[in-house]
Amino acid sequence: LKNMIEPRVLKGFRDYLPDIMIPREELLNRVSEVFRRYGFGPLATPALEYSEILMGKYGEEGDKLLYRFLDNGERDISLRYDLTVPLARVVAMHRELPRPFRRYQVAPVWRAEKPGRGRFREFMQCDADIVGSSSLAADAECVRLGCAILTALGVREFTLVLNNRKILDGIMEVTRVRPRAEAIRVLDKLDKIGVDAVRTELLDTVGLTPEQVDDLEALFSLDFLKEGGRDSVRATLAGSEVGTKGVEELAHVLSLLSPTGVLPRLRVNLSLARGMDYYTGTIYETFLDGHTEYGSVMSGGRYDGLVGVFSNEEIPAVGISLGVDRLLAALTELGVLKARSCLTRVLVVRFGPGSLVGEVEAVERLRAAGIACEHFLEAGKLGKQFQYADRQGIPLAVVRGPDEVAQGVCQVKSLTSGEQFTVPLEELVGWVRARLEL
Amino acid sequence: LKNMIEPRVLKGFRDYLPDIMIPREELLNRVSEVFRRYGFGPLATPALEYSEILMGKYGEEGDKLLYRFLDNGERDISLRYDLTVPLARVVAMHRELPRPFRRYQVAPVWRAEKPGRGRFREFMQCDADIVGSSSLAADAECVRLGCAILTALGVREFTLVLNNRKILDGIMEVTRVRPRAEAIRVLDKLDKIGVDAVRTELLDTVGLTPEQVDDLEALFSLDFLKEGGRDSVRATLAGSEVGTKGVEELAHVLSLLSPTGVLPRLRVNLSLARGMDYYTGTIYETFLDGHTEYGSVMSGGRYDGLVGVFSNEEIPAVGISLGVDRLLAALTELGVLKARSCLTRVLVVRFGPGSLVGEVEAVERLRAAGIACEHFLEAGKLGKQFQYADRQGIPLAVVRGPDEVAQGVCQVKSLTSGEQFTVPLEELVGWVRARLEL
Repeated sequence: LKNMIEPRVLKGFRDYLPDIMIPREELLNRVSEVFRRYGFGPLATPALEYSEILMGKYGEEGDKLLYRFLDNGERDISLRYDLTVPLARVVAMHRELPRPFRRYQVAPVWRAEKPGRGRFREFMQCDADIVGSSSLAADAECVRLGCAILTALGVREFTLVLNNRKILDGIMEVTRVRPRAEAIRVLDKLDKIGVDAVRTELLDTVGLTPEQVDDLEALFSLDFLKEGGRDSVRATLAGSEVGTKGVEELAHVLSLLSPTGVLPRLRVNLSLARGMDYYTGTIYETFLDGHTEYGSVMSGGRYDGLVGVFSNEEIPAVGISLGVDRLLAALTELGVLKARSCLTRVLVVRFGPGSLVGEVEAVERLRAAGIACEHFLEAGKLGKQFQYADRQGIPLAVVRGPDEVAQGVCQVKSLTSGEQFTVPLEELVGWVRARLEL
Repeated sequence: LKNMIEPRVLKGFRDYLPDIMIPREELLNRVSEVFRRYGFGPLATPALEYSEILMGKYGEEGDKLLYRFLDNGERDISLRYDLTVPLARVVAMHRELPRPFRRYQVAPVWRAEKPGRGRFREFMQCDADIVGSSSLAADAECVRLGCAILTALGVREFTLVLNNRKILDGIMEVTRVRPRAEAIRVLDKLDKIGVDAVRTELLDTVGLTPEQVDDLEALFSLDFLKEGGRDSVRATLAGSEVGTKGVEELAHVLSLLSPTGVLPRLRVNLSLARGMDYYTGTIYETFLDGHTEYGSVMSGGRYDGLVGVFSNEEIPAVGISLGVDRLLAALTELGVLKARSCLTRVLVVRFGPGSLVGEVEAVERLRAAGIACEHFLEAGKLGKQFQYADRQGIPLAVVRGPDEVAQGVCQVKSLTSGEQFTVPLEELVGWVRARLEL
């Protein structure tokens, strides 16, 4: 008996078999196409970084979740935790890059979190960022890009929720809420735990007074998109410098977006906080209408302090990040992306040694026309070969035995309907295209 | 003074800035398209595996090059070293996968090698494999696929060098060479160090007799593609069972390839060994004619024993692997792929607050037509904006100030020629397409 090694994957990790990979690749290709159309260029950074590059950027909790170890040369290294900090390092290192630098990156990141339903220790991130511009036009561009991505993916009903960290800071200032960070962390859970639970936590855990909580609630209920609501927010925050700045910024971003036609998709939520510490201005999250169970599928904001950590100058930045796995789950479950375990459209059957040349003729024609085609590897019973095609979801099988070769034709079997057709070899490509609506 | 963290990357790792990423993405997209056309589906596996999955598959040297560490849960884990062993694990774990399973995977691997010119500790692998078929048609299919990939990449002059491990084993048997593994390792260096150095090493280090080396040389000089040469090989190896099997296999693979038209690109080299221990039959490497300095850009072979390490059954397999970085270096240096640092084709200039709507009109039209377009983020001197476009290699800039909006036109400036054109907004997309030959 040989010493067999049990095949297994680590907890929190997974194989992506073709049935998940095919729609995922389709999603990522469509997203990359939009990134490029919007003037973003691709970037790749190493999976491993010096630990000091990553530490201290994600809060205390984040540091603990790093895959951190010593390499053979005793260097303290870690797997990347996100794509934003490595981007900041790249911009600080490569002074030759244009400013603003518009880049996108699609790559896995690693976090040693407790694995759970839909939560993995390795997952794909898909980010676009504009680094080196403090113009609010960059914020508007990222929001515009986010809407264009969902539209390109065939999603029509979605809501992009906007806020500005400065407004939230202003609100905390005028309502005299302390400690702010803790209050913001509680507010961030509004979507998850609901208004009542947040109220209770603000009172009992953060220690706010009932009046403070009422003030917050009143402010959060104002509709910034309506003139009256915006005026009330402006008036309430008049005593806060940072709050007033936030109101101006958010109003300006909205005015920059108004000619693009995305306004009907936008909502402002003044309680939106976003988890990461590093945001400094505009922030946003995106939800599929009627399907908030997937959470935010796309989010981001402005983080003007981060790049400066690696540099002598302050370098402003704003970006947007897609939740690839969430979006993929949502779009396949909603039927926007089709789950398919096989891309092959035609199986050319292996008839026997004498018919090899004739079969290869059919195979080569189909492939030259860009039609995904497999040539069965072993001659054998046709029934078995048809069954193989059918099980894999290959819709058509082509038979080209000696008789067919002599007549210059193929027999084409539809594995979905069971029908069989005699098609001249010359017409095979056109026939398959028409049949499969390619 | 703030505590700045020095931005740096680990030795042997690198950032891929857009100027390298753009041709690399183009290369990988074209290759993936061929994989799909040939009936291969995409797969992704985790970057991290239990160390026992990887250990002992790459030889003693390989084990030492693993990035291996204990995670927070004290699990002994490693970064993947190649894509082949994880594939073997996947096939052994997922019994529901079709047999044969045709998959491709494009992903980075990590090896803690001494970094050197063109040698990195993180590099991209790009593999296609057929698992679960012992048919030599699978070997032929991989060779055919390799030729199709180079053709799709625009490479016309290349040579795919074939051999069969069993022939090499047979040759070792009839020439009574021992130790075989060591002799094969020396033969593998023929391309790198030349005939004379190999001869010396075989005599002095491996300890062969001058007669043995002469016998080897005589055998290696036979031309298997010519009938006479093949007969001589067959006659010489008649006394070796494994050698005779190898001759049959190689002849059969060639006969399966003959109707596909790739024979003129093939050469047989009976001394070809390939490094990895796990090969058991057909093996191949590929060289760009007149540019052997890049080494083999694509290689692979049959490895029938590997998957069985994780399973109770023997599962035969054959595959091909592209050297992405080598191929990319070769194709950009030879001008087959164009190095470009920016994909954006049009910069729409920011004129002033009053012209926002008119500018957005132009931006939206171009993007809707799939033309990569950037809207400058800050209103300012036109000269500065033109300079930004020019530095980035953006060929056209569009100006749409109040006068142009009033007349329903744009001013389009070619940054390559300096010419300026007045183009009606309605005709902008068609004009840009014609000008840029899109």
